[in-house]
Amino acid sequence: MKKVGILHPGAMGSSIAASAAAGGHAVYWAAAGRSAASRARADAQGLIALESLAELCAVCDVLLCVCPPDAAVTVAAAVASAGFRGLYCDGNAIAPQKARLIGERLAAAGIDFVDGSIIGPPAWRAGTTRFYLSGSGADAIAALFAGSLTEAIPLGEEIGKASALKMVFAAGTKGATALTVAILGVAEQLGLRADLHAELARREADLPQRRQQQARAVTAKAWRFAGEMQEIATTFEEAGLPPGFFQAAQEVYQRLALFKDQETTPEIEAVLAALLKPD
Amino acid sequence: MKKVGILHPGAMGSSIAASAAAGGHAVYWAAAGRSAASRARADAQGLIALESLAELCAVCDVLLCVCPPDAAVTVAAAVASAGFRGLYCDGNAIAPQKARLIGERLAAAGIDFVDGSIIGPPAWRAGTTRFYLSGSGADAIAALFAGSLTEAIPLGEEIGKASALKMVFAAGTKGATALTVAILGVAEQLGLRADLHAELARREADLPQRRQQQARAVTAKAWRFAGEMQEIATTFEEAGLPPGFFQAAQEVYQRLALFKDQETTPEIEAVLAALLKPD
Repeated sequence: MKKVGILHPGAMGSSIAASAAAGGHAVYWAAAGRSAASRARADAQGLIALESLAELCAVCDVLLCVCPPDAAVTVAAAVASAGFRGLYCDGNAIAPQKARLIGERLAAAGIDFVDGSIIGPPAWRAGTTRFYLSGSGADAIAALFAGSLTEAIPLGEEIGKASALKMVFAAGTKGATALTVAILGVAEQLGLRADLHAELARREADLPQRRQQQARAVTAKAWRFAGEMQEIATTFEEAGLPPGFFQAAQEVYQRLALFKDQETTPEIEAVLAALLKPD
Repeated sequence: MKKVGILHPGAMGSSIAASAAAGGHAVYWAAAGRSAASRARADAQGLIALESLAELCAVCDVLLCVCPPDAAVTVAAAVASAGFRGLYCDGNAIAPQKARLIGERLAAAGIDFVDGSIIGPPAWRAGTTRFYLSGSGADAIAALFAGSLTEAIPLGEEIGKASALKMVFAAGTKGATALTVAILGVAEQLGLRADLHAELARREADLPQRRQQQARAVTAKAWRFAGEMQEIATTFEEAGLPPGFFQAAQEVYQRLALFKDQETTPEIEAVLAALLKPD
């Protein structure tokens, strides 16, 4: 039984924490500066509240980081500064280059590092969510989730491999969605939306409806996807493939960032207006 | 009954010519400088061979241009120089800006212009292929195809509208295929192809196979798609959406251009090697 800290109990992080707790581990979080929504999620899963990051680092054997990709380096640096000495696992959607950078910096601070990435929705049902892991401590992290709703899959010792798998997977899902959104925007701008829908409907009757639904549904998460697209662009460029798909996808999601946390799904007209009139 | 000229009887153009001939029109082509394959296609459809472009322009009431997007401006200019005085329809996958440019140049030479675009495979079966048309002569061009395997759809008087519809449609099909190909390339480069396939197969068992098949199947046409991606990039940029998707797609297809006209579909390893080792 380990003492596991979660940074932070967001929508995804709280489900990963719940999976570790289900395995019999004590799961902690640091409340300082976190939102009321995070507190509510942490309380609902019975996580043990500590106040500061320093306390979390002092108490825990293992830290799991689940945060937006832009914050991954900063969170790891704060953990190193706080004097943590256990095993640190980054589970974020970052380029493998960034995972290696974090690993090097933590190693310099005497912290063991596991590269991780999560594919699927928050792990509230069996069979939906994989936590890919790579690095010499991958099996130790995987053991935390034995028998839980989070399926941990070790990918060997190479730091960056778990992150790279997330990048190529999300490239297909979130990249294709951004492409769909952009196409609807161009069709709207050129006065062609009805004509495009008519052509699409010849293929599959409900295709126009599905494409619009896809664009509307992604708006609430677009703010978070923008940073992930930048990570994928970096991954593609370093692998020698053109990064333009994801630079464009980043801009599409950035233009939709104003829909962050809106409770009602916007109408397609509002989505297209935001796309065509960036600030 | 009209005298219709086809520029040129390629795989698509010969089927469009056959549709016009089926409507009872006399269909001509100009053999000078064309390949043996074009001659074979023209003969098979009973097209009437003339020698030069000048003869074609002198004989025909209507010219239909079906050529790669890079050649559209050049072909139209040659027709204007040859003294054509009838109705000219461009059916190519070009940006609406380019369609308007061609229309202006032809108008200056006293030639009526119809903007057109073709969606679907060569028209050898009913219900597969639409010829979208816009401009004041759209109905006249559409009338050529009455009762044929090519379904002509007028979109009103605005030059550029038919081309724009092709751009937003092909953006979704050929753009998504380029994204799939690029992702397979990155996965290969990062040593992750088997891991990506395992994750994809969790969604749908045959998804890895379908993605690879898609990449292999597009290789023979990639040389032609590269130019079309540039047209779509221009269309997106002018509409105020980021063109990067299609600049990247152009590069992907360009790297596969060496598979032009290969008779056997290459293995996925050969496709990925070409993608990762550009000249």
